[in-house]
Amino acid sequence: MSATWSLPTRVKVVEVGPRDGLQNESTVIPTATKLALIQRLAEAGLRHIEATAFVSPRWVPQMADHDAVMRAVPRLPGVTYSALTPNLQGFEAALAAGAQEVAVFGSASEAFSQKNINCSIAQGLVRFEAVLEAARRAGIPVRGYVSCVLGCPYQGEVTPEAVAAVAGALFEMGCHEISLGDTIGVGTPLKTRRMLEAVSRHVEVSRLAGHYHDTYGQALANVLASLQHGVAVFDSSVAGLGGCPYAAGASGNLASEDLTYLLHGLGIETGIDLQALAQAGRFISDVLGRPTRSKAGQALLA
Amino acid sequence: MSATWSLPTRVKVVEVGPRDGLQNESTVIPTATKLALIQRLAEAGLRHIEATAFVSPRWVPQMADHDAVMRAVPRLPGVTYSALTPNLQGFEAALAAGAQEVAVFGSASEAFSQKNINCSIAQGLVRFEAVLEAARRAGIPVRGYVSCVLGCPYQGEVTPEAVAAVAGALFEMGCHEISLGDTIGVGTPLKTRRMLEAVSRHVEVSRLAGHYHDTYGQALANVLASLQHGVAVFDSSVAGLGGCPYAAGASGNLASEDLTYLLHGLGIETGIDLQALAQAGRFISDVLGRPTRSKAGQALLA
Repeated sequence: MSATWSLPTRVKVVEVGPRDGLQNESTVIPTATKLALIQRLAEAGLRHIEATAFVSPRWVPQMADHDAVMRAVPRLPGVTYSALTPNLQGFEAALAAGAQEVAVFGSASEAFSQKNINCSIAQGLVRFEAVLEAARRAGIPVRGYVSCVLGCPYQGEVTPEAVAAVAGALFEMGCHEISLGDTIGVGTPLKTRRMLEAVSRHVEVSRLAGHYHDTYGQALANVLASLQHGVAVFDSSVAGLGGCPYAAGASGNLASEDLTYLLHGLGIETGIDLQALAQAGRFISDVLGRPTRSKAGQALLA
Repeated sequence: MSATWSLPTRVKVVEVGPRDGLQNESTVIPTATKLALIQRLAEAGLRHIEATAFVSPRWVPQMADHDAVMRAVPRLPGVTYSALTPNLQGFEAALAAGAQEVAVFGSASEAFSQKNINCSIAQGLVRFEAVLEAARRAGIPVRGYVSCVLGCPYQGEVTPEAVAAVAGALFEMGCHEISLGDTIGVGTPLKTRRMLEAVSRHVEVSRLAGHYHDTYGQALANVLASLQHGVAVFDSSVAGLGGCPYAAGASGNLASEDLTYLLHGLGIETGIDLQALAQAGRFISDVLGRPTRSKAGQALLA
């Protein structure tokens, strides 16, 4: 009846709350608060924390303190702090501030690429070459994000082949890990599986990460489908930080607590202390003055 | 790499919002409001609606108007209205009021059974015999609920074998469908699969329904695991009505909108108009004066 599942025994969780989560917040979060959140996340066992983005404060005011954040993150042993660096200037600043890993951000959707970075997908990739080259010289690993892998707010459908092409290009350019983002959370498991099948013809599964938004409540089902496909890296955001800029009031990032609850329930090791993670979620939710978006967080703290 | 999925092509969604959802609400909902909700649900394409419970108003004050509700439900063609009937008196009242299906409620947990109905699991089953016998004479199908199938608020672990024993007994007694309830939402997909494997050795899969609560955000992942096992009936509650009585402020029932979004995304037919369902969710959320608990509902209405 049911096929035998062969799930990874260990999963790497990449915590993106301090960057992807907070960047959409309209009220400016003090640097000290961001650092306190990062400290709590590291103490909860997160080993990969995207701490900030070296982007222009004109684009993302919330990340204007990227230097101060990256220079002061708690350097717990075994924890990697990364930063989004869309261009060479950002990369050099991130490197100077002590980033141990950086990330570039591509899109699988032509319409999204045009609207967001004013260039085609191919032109966007060319812009990253300088970052990849500088990172190679500095010995800094680069993560490649691909957005809109299961749908686009502007063009609607995005084919698995389009995702595979961008993922493959980023991998060829030297990205060590490709994070596949369902930016608007419209994906469902069969679509996720078809996308992964296409991508894994270009990039081996061990190099792929699932970055699924929970806008329609589908993120964990998509994680399960991805685990069944062999994906063993997932991005999430404590307390589900980060709304969906394309649907007012709706959820954005998958909550790290919900993801961790799933993984532990499947007997998969993460190294995360779920109670401590839920406390970190409570800390930042209290700062933001709203209830957590994590169902597991809410239940664990009830 | 990934196993081929063989999913059902059509799924029966049992809407439990008017009963399981509303029964935990502390403010009394007017009968007319319940009927308006049921009307909207039927118009949205729901074909199985649990409308009320014929229980003592001392236990569940919210269901005190069960007669009035069942007598006045909109009799749209093809829609089955059911009611929970824990004893013969309740069954007879439900039948007189025009219920087309009834349901009895067992538990897979000894501790839960003792705390909730003051008797053992076995004693509880004996009490249902009169209902099953009367229903057989009246030609009324009986649904059997099993609670705590993936964990219990009092005893913690519940074995798959304990679930299988109760499910098998209810099926033997004549229940045409067995709804397997993760009452406190603690289950995860592997546990769900193991439970289904045990149960389907006693009851064929076509007779099983998944009733998963979303307390820890795991319900849709458990639905996916169940679909992969061949389960083709799921219970859900519009707008995620019904909190978790065992974790204050936490979510209870899986939202019908989230379930329907998943099923349609998998290419599975439900007969449901998702936009109309989301509107029904908005209607009742507005009445209750709070945002919907459905992520898909929130995104669709944004």
